[in-house]
Amino acid sequence: MGLVRAVRFRGRQTGRVRDGRREARYNQMMSLVVVGSVAYDGVETPGAQVDRILGGACTYISVAASFFTKVSIVGVVGEDFAEEDIAFLGSRGVDLTGLERAAGKTFFWRGRYAEDMNTRTTLQTDLNVFADFQPKLPESHRGYPYLLLGNIQPSLQQQVLEQMKSPRVVAGDTMDLWIQTTRDDLVATIRHWDALIINDQEARMLSGETNLRRAARIIMAMGPNTLIIKRGEFGAILFHRDCLFYAPGYLLEEVFDPTGAGDSFAGGFMGYVAQKGLQLSAPDLDMRELARAVIYGSVMGSFCCEKFGVDRFRDLTRAEIDARFQEFRTFTGF
Amino acid sequence: MGLVRAVRFRGRQTGRVRDGRREARYNQMMSLVVVGSVAYDGVETPGAQVDRILGGACTYISVAASFFTKVSIVGVVGEDFAEEDIAFLGSRGVDLTGLERAAGKTFFWRGRYAEDMNTRTTLQTDLNVFADFQPKLPESHRGYPYLLLGNIQPSLQQQVLEQMKSPRVVAGDTMDLWIQTTRDDLVATIRHWDALIINDQEARMLSGETNLRRAARIIMAMGPNTLIIKRGEFGAILFHRDCLFYAPGYLLEEVFDPTGAGDSFAGGFMGYVAQKGLQLSAPDLDMRELARAVIYGSVMGSFCCEKFGVDRFRDLTRAEIDARFQEFRTFTGF
Repeated sequence: MGLVRAVRFRGRQTGRVRDGRREARYNQMMSLVVVGSVAYDGVETPGAQVDRILGGACTYISVAASFFTKVSIVGVVGEDFAEEDIAFLGSRGVDLTGLERAAGKTFFWRGRYAEDMNTRTTLQTDLNVFADFQPKLPESHRGYPYLLLGNIQPSLQQQVLEQMKSPRVVAGDTMDLWIQTTRDDLVATIRHWDALIINDQEARMLSGETNLRRAARIIMAMGPNTLIIKRGEFGAILFHRDCLFYAPGYLLEEVFDPTGAGDSFAGGFMGYVAQKGLQLSAPDLDMRELARAVIYGSVMGSFCCEKFGVDRFRDLTRAEIDARFQEFRTFTGF
Repeated sequence: MGLVRAVRFRGRQTGRVRDGRREARYNQMMSLVVVGSVAYDGVETPGAQVDRILGGACTYISVAASFFTKVSIVGVVGEDFAEEDIAFLGSRGVDLTGLERAAGKTFFWRGRYAEDMNTRTTLQTDLNVFADFQPKLPESHRGYPYLLLGNIQPSLQQQVLEQMKSPRVVAGDTMDLWIQTTRDDLVATIRHWDALIINDQEARMLSGETNLRRAARIIMAMGPNTLIIKRGEFGAILFHRDCLFYAPGYLLEEVFDPTGAGDSFAGGFMGYVAQKGLQLSAPDLDMRELARAVIYGSVMGSFCCEKFGVDRFRDLTRAEIDARFQEFRTFTGF
């Protein structure tokens, strides 16, 4: 199992001070559990390079979501995981009760971006402690209403889902590897999800259909009532039952490092869903609210690209987020 | 020169009947001159094939624009150009006074689409009479207010522009070939244009800049106050002075034949601009109106893909166009 000890570290709460009991109830009402990789990344872009920065899907998702709601993460790191990274996650109010520290090294990934910043080559993947990751939810998390399953093996995603009592919304990500190698497990678990968040190539692969509108119908017939297809710099498409919504990609003056943009998108989306207490299976769900969640996802994805790793989120404010949300309104209204 | 005789054929007017003088003034007020190729195309898609159908940029632009405004075309066809195609253009109210018929054959192009319908291979290009095309505007057209220069040699585009008296709006298209081989001519003519309508790769090539936001600034410094960057299935971005607008691509259930979609986009855009009497250089131009023009462009581009060639436009109605415009509103509002 590789588990050694659980890190019991809880950062300071952000947001205005409430009396203890009200705050606890409020946090629980909108609490989001995020499961996935916490990693170190090496990134090479045409203009710059870093050897080792905080990364991993779970990290990006939880940091992005933390601007909207209370987030608890479930993941594993090695003995080399730095106190300053623990401190940063804590400073974002992320509950680290479910972050285990195992003997060995933290998951490491290294990649290089091509000139256009769209094509990425993986240069190194050391799973390290992540290879034996068996997500285990702290008892306190099992009653939380929102669950976002980062991109890990479908069987582990299912395992997490089974540990939850009765989440209001379950959303998750996957990737080409699982679609190809563990398709049955994947199909078995997404049957229980409300929302699937994947990119266009994954949607085509999962559905076996090139046309995205038809692909969406096939995928939604597998279970999720909500499907978000991410298209990188071109934005995202939201499908919810018979409804459709297009979110453009924000045109940045400079794309500094796109690593984690898709996960930050997912975090922004799910963070807003949790903040608003939305229930995706509700027949009277306000489609506009769901669309706003997608726009907040795009906003967070765009900020993510402005600096290396999670650096842009270190001093980002909710006011900046809302200002960019308004820009999206201006840039899409007619 | 290859010119033999000008076709003097004018189709019936569509739209409600006005008294003669009012109709003439109205037509002139919003008249759009379109210059470019009229051609026959052979098209192979993964699912179907046609050997010879009506095509060419000028054809798509003028047919799409004809749903919005009065259109006159300037182009050349060969002796093989069919009466039924003349009749079709006429039935759309397109003024063919400026369509010359030259000795020889009509421009012919044949291409094949890959499985994803995004990649296109040109199999055959016979310029035929188009090789010696020297656009000559009938005297009656020179005072018309709107001019759309289809993708032909920049020197010919300039030649057309010089024949116009003082058009209210000049817009045009170009392609990689002219950017690479006749860059100076191109830069010299777009200096006088209000709007440039190109795709993302062309924008990058023309500006020498990968980032589209920076590329747009560079291109607009060359003259046009308006730049539309087409992104195929991903929609289009409108830049106008300091304003920005994103139009999504309409997600069709089936993309039957994308040939001419970009030109139909340009036709829909410019048709609406002319219908509304917009002046792109006006300091008080309503950006929302310009955005609507882009959406109408997207609408026409999407309809174009539903059948081979211009076939979808044969029975398309303005009501269907407006219904799809409303769909765009629904699919982008939040």
